[in-house]
Amino acid sequence: MIEIITIGDELLIGQVIDTNSAWMGKELNLAGFEVVRVTSVRDRKDEIKEALAGATRRSSVVLITGGLGPTRDDITKQTLCEFFNTRLVFNEEVYNDVKTFLKGRVCRINNLNRGQAMVPENCEVIRNPVGTAPIMWFEKEQKIVVSMPGVPAEMKEAMSKHIIPRLKARFNPGVIIHKTVLVYGITEAHLAEKLSGWEENLPKEIKLAYLPAPGRIRLRLTARGHEEEILKNNIDKAVKALDNIIGEHIYGYEDLEAAEIFGQFFRSTGKTLTVAESCSGGYLAHLITSIPGASNYFKGSVVAYSNELKAALLGVEPDKIAKYGAVSQPVVEEMALGALKVTGAHYAIATSGIAGPDGGTPQKPVGTIWIAWVGPNQQVVSKCFQFGNNRERNIIRTSETALIELMQMIKEKRL
Amino acid sequence: MIEIITIGDELLIGQVIDTNSAWMGKELNLAGFEVVRVTSVRDRKDEIKEALAGATRRSSVVLITGGLGPTRDDITKQTLCEFFNTRLVFNEEVYNDVKTFLKGRVCRINNLNRGQAMVPENCEVIRNPVGTAPIMWFEKEQKIVVSMPGVPAEMKEAMSKHIIPRLKARFNPGVIIHKTVLVYGITEAHLAEKLSGWEENLPKEIKLAYLPAPGRIRLRLTARGHEEEILKNNIDKAVKALDNIIGEHIYGYEDLEAAEIFGQFFRSTGKTLTVAESCSGGYLAHLITSIPGASNYFKGSVVAYSNELKAALLGVEPDKIAKYGAVSQPVVEEMALGALKVTGAHYAIATSGIAGPDGGTPQKPVGTIWIAWVGPNQQVVSKCFQFGNNRERNIIRTSETALIELMQMIKEKRL
Repeated sequence: MIEIITIGDELLIGQVIDTNSAWMGKELNLAGFEVVRVTSVRDRKDEIKEALAGATRRSSVVLITGGLGPTRDDITKQTLCEFFNTRLVFNEEVYNDVKTFLKGRVCRINNLNRGQAMVPENCEVIRNPVGTAPIMWFEKEQKIVVSMPGVPAEMKEAMSKHIIPRLKARFNPGVIIHKTVLVYGITEAHLAEKLSGWEENLPKEIKLAYLPAPGRIRLRLTARGHEEEILKNNIDKAVKALDNIIGEHIYGYEDLEAAEIFGQFFRSTGKTLTVAESCSGGYLAHLITSIPGASNYFKGSVVAYSNELKAALLGVEPDKIAKYGAVSQPVVEEMALGALKVTGAHYAIATSGIAGPDGGTPQKPVGTIWIAWVGPNQQVVSKCFQFGNNRERNIIRTSETALIELMQMIKEKRL
Repeated sequence: MIEIITIGDELLIGQVIDTNSAWMGKELNLAGFEVVRVTSVRDRKDEIKEALAGATRRSSVVLITGGLGPTRDDITKQTLCEFFNTRLVFNEEVYNDVKTFLKGRVCRINNLNRGQAMVPENCEVIRNPVGTAPIMWFEKEQKIVVSMPGVPAEMKEAMSKHIIPRLKARFNPGVIIHKTVLVYGITEAHLAEKLSGWEENLPKEIKLAYLPAPGRIRLRLTARGHEEEILKNNIDKAVKALDNIIGEHIYGYEDLEAAEIFGQFFRSTGKTLTVAESCSGGYLAHLITSIPGASNYFKGSVVAYSNELKAALLGVEPDKIAKYGAVSQPVVEEMALGALKVTGAHYAIATSGIAGPDGGTPQKPVGTIWIAWVGPNQQVVSKCFQFGNNRERNIIRTSETALIELMQMIKEKRL
């Protein structure tokens, strides 16, 4: 059993959201460990010591992040000395690491940096290659306490490279195998209903978690045991059975963002893509270009927010807009065809909808979204969605749905 | 002194980041309270009770979120009964609220929903207008314990409408006045250096916090006391002094996102805007259109990721791209002028740069970003920035800098 303590006034007054403990919990869980409690405390000696006493009483491993900076308000190190009844000593190796790290970054090493080379006498120092604060590993009365920096990049490096491997070697948590199944186009409640029989028949060593996001759900299967081959086989069988039930809703098997899955897939097709956006307002292009290497297949796009631009840049007939409205099947299809023509790409996506909060009507309430897709032979597919009344979620769902559906249509040769 | 307990397995295995406690910490701090500890525990009775016992021993107010759903694994209510040595009783009013809330959303009320109307006998129920889980207020031996749902929207409603007002009435934390100063175009270290004298002369009752984000910093001044007039005067004086030192770097005084500040400002000008994006890839348009009402002034944009599109849609001369490269002053200026021409907007912004991770050269390393702005009289201003090697941060900084700088130029009649 592991507990996490995160230290820093900024966490308690809400300046900073504690993302470290969630990341640590996830990674430790993936490695076969259970985190049973996370405690966030202020930069106060007595409060840190009280939290440490409770955590070491309950759990065998306590991981601490934060409070190791060079400034006066960071007091974790002194507090650890008091807690373990030891003193700070100068550590030449840490000092050299700090000097090396700061070389070229600052004009001179100051006393504050020299202070960073002072470490509690009873701890083992693990060197930190990506920052100036050392990682400190304490052991006392069968309990392990590790103190590491709160800077996420430094914490992650320390956890992945040193702390998790050491904990695994020490506690042998067994074999853990994870498989993530990415699902879209079905609500969580309907999915749970469809899967109830399958879920009941899962072997005992496989656990299932539903991880929902706007418009899609990650299903995470976790098998825990000691024989890797058997676990793998059982997971594979379970996923195959799942595919028979909800195959049409599955768009991937890796724990990646929709844009990453799409980017990997689309790049492999060797084709090019363009988009014409109205309601998604640039977010669809942003999702595509957030993936490094998008320039290999993404030509660019038009955000035709105004009706004039829909006409001027995409060639949508103003009469059609007047007759059917900008949020309509004929207009969204013309947008997609226009984008294809103007850019010469193989595939085009167009979006037009009412993201909200204003602009809804009884016929077309907020959340009404049209998406059109066009393929190399000018075939057009379009669909109308009703996503709800939150502007931000409507923009995200429109964009992710547009990418996932295009990928599925190409895979199934529907486009 | 207030403690927060967040309950749920999903928090410990890192499926969900605990954003609730940060939001609560911020709001409570703004209201004059101090949160001294946040504890996250699993859905286990003994662990919840142990956390509750510790929190009520140390602090006079304990706020709990989560574990109130209708499913089996949510056990907060039963645990509170055991902790307070009481029993669950059926509450007619809560049951009617649940029925009203679910009307039209589900086919029928089931036993699980009926279970939601069972509440501990010794608590005061605060009605929840935005969900089905009741808010429960307990008092025992001078300690206050409040249990509320973990769904952020429900928690926020409960905190803002009921819990914070009640706590204020009970504890009278005094007057708190906040003022946020939005700063850009200067690093935190340089800012701290420039402000050291000013900071030392701040009246004792004013506290200062640096809240950095990519490319900008929020300075938050907080005055605490009992005489509102005096506090206000002192804050105003401090801000005026600040304006004399770093006025050129200040772009706003409200705690809003850059896009919100820009949207409010630009709408008030009555002018229209367009953008031509290369390296920002749609994110700049997304920032603008993320603000409701953007269609009043935003015409649309072109994401000219490929050089052909820069030519076809924006009229950039291919010779210029060949001669200077796509990431260059002549090209980014032509992109902005082209966007202005094709859309007929009053103002245009263009971006072109190397977002990374690939594409850098010794002359133009990753992070080299050109931004150009054009105004109603075709004046062009352009600047080159060097932002660093993180793709995501480069995209965000480019887009936010483009908006903030345009706003400053219009305000100062430079464009």
